[in-house]
Amino acid sequence: MRDFAYYNGKYGLKEEISIPLSDRAIYFGDGVYDAAIGKNGKIFLSNEHILRFLGNAKKLEIAHNYTYDNILSILEKCAEMSGYESYFLYFQLSRGAKRRSHSYIGATQTNLLVTAEEFRLPDIKKPLSLITAEDLRYYYCNIKTINLLPAVIASGAAEKSGADEAVFCRGNTVTECAHSNISILKDRILYTHPKSNLILPGITRAHLLSTCKKLGIKYLETPFTTKELFSADEVLITSTSKLCRIADRIDNVRVGGKDSDTAEKICRYMINEFVNFQQENP
Amino acid sequence: MRDFAYYNGKYGLKEEISIPLSDRAIYFGDGVYDAAIGKNGKIFLSNEHILRFLGNAKKLEIAHNYTYDNILSILEKCAEMSGYESYFLYFQLSRGAKRRSHSYIGATQTNLLVTAEEFRLPDIKKPLSLITAEDLRYYYCNIKTINLLPAVIASGAAEKSGADEAVFCRGNTVTECAHSNISILKDRILYTHPKSNLILPGITRAHLLSTCKKLGIKYLETPFTTKELFSADEVLITSTSKLCRIADRIDNVRVGGKDSDTAEKICRYMINEFVNFQQENP
Repeated sequence: MRDFAYYNGKYGLKEEISIPLSDRAIYFGDGVYDAAIGKNGKIFLSNEHILRFLGNAKKLEIAHNYTYDNILSILEKCAEMSGYESYFLYFQLSRGAKRRSHSYIGATQTNLLVTAEEFRLPDIKKPLSLITAEDLRYYYCNIKTINLLPAVIASGAAEKSGADEAVFCRGNTVTECAHSNISILKDRILYTHPKSNLILPGITRAHLLSTCKKLGIKYLETPFTTKELFSADEVLITSTSKLCRIADRIDNVRVGGKDSDTAEKICRYMINEFVNFQQENP
Repeated sequence: MRDFAYYNGKYGLKEEISIPLSDRAIYFGDGVYDAAIGKNGKIFLSNEHILRFLGNAKKLEIAHNYTYDNILSILEKCAEMSGYESYFLYFQLSRGAKRRSHSYIGATQTNLLVTAEEFRLPDIKKPLSLITAEDLRYYYCNIKTINLLPAVIASGAAEKSGADEAVFCRGNTVTECAHSNISILKDRILYTHPKSNLILPGITRAHLLSTCKKLGIKYLETPFTTKELFSADEVLITSTSKLCRIADRIDNVRVGGKDSDTAEKICRYMINEFVNFQQENP
């Protein structure tokens, strides 16, 4: 078992893969990425992840020749070669150009990078601790690009405070976290920021909403304030690798804990879906 | 004569240098950069560029062991090895970490990348053509980081329109261009956006202001609107590689041309300073 990778036609151990300077990921962060988890040769929600990835490449006009099937088979091969039972698959598509120049017109190559690392199921019983951070990001948050510095800064601040994640607040509005979406429960209704250029349309966020539907829990895609976050009945964090987790502390203040039945039911349901999944057909 | 590069202790031809996946430039754009021009073994405004670079690394808490003198000598060696008479030097400092994780705490290595390419003096007689673009960037524009995707998008749009550069407007306020600063002349006064987190404190912008001082031209660091841009007497674009250039067209509309004596005097003065410079002592 070892971290495995792919780059532009070449497979190898992750530490053996290197990237030429012509890859515009290095100079500009000129690329998109996605990440999925899987187990036993299968990829959870592969359809959603690969389609989002291809859609984001299109939004940035990253021209390439990869098809859905190409990408799926490269992801599957990396997963297989890694030998891990459960794996975290990262995939990135970036533009290439010979000489550094901001404009991407005439970029000569597209680079596909894939890595497979071990994935461990989160302990859903362990609540998360959060900090708040001012949302100073750009207005392309709906596209999953590798321009992630504001998320890096906020994640560093969270770790320094001993917290797990940072919640971005744009003015008084809670948008999302540095690398997760955030939702609250209040009076048995789940609230989450609507899709817009201020948040990533998380696949686990969509999965959370469909879970609510299945469990008969009402939800509203409507913005909520920092004040409403602190007074919520429960705070839920969703992401590909966290699935769905309860947060019980923000800026070292106790939050939530007022509707743990509903919150735990949602988290348990979502983790069980991963445990029991069979790969969907594209 | 050939493009030459340096990466973490190794010198080589630019096309031979490759970057390991552990460099966080690739996944996150987690790094800062700077660029300078030079000729005959010397680097123009090296003091300002290297100090800004080190200052930006500090702002992002990128820990490293490089001193001012280290960096200067690596830049000089790359310039020398390239064999070019005039060169464009690019230098980038990024964090390293073994496993992909947003938080930078415990990042194990800092990576210094330097490239030397040929530099050609711009033809100051050729006016620039611009387009306007909505400023959708983050609020860290004062730090020269490699999270440059919005500048890439705007530069691509400019090139598609046959223009040279894109002017960012945040609401009605002109901030700067995708990879230059912008100033206007109106009634013999030069206006440019004040230093803040909305613009890069350009070294050539500072050089422009000191040139105005030397030439007895009054300047104000105060924001101006898109409307004022279109009705300006002259529009000036400054950057390391462009030095100072006049723009005569924005969104295919004729602009400026009402105080060409002053505008040309400034541009000529600044290009002559590069032509005649002797390296400053740090």
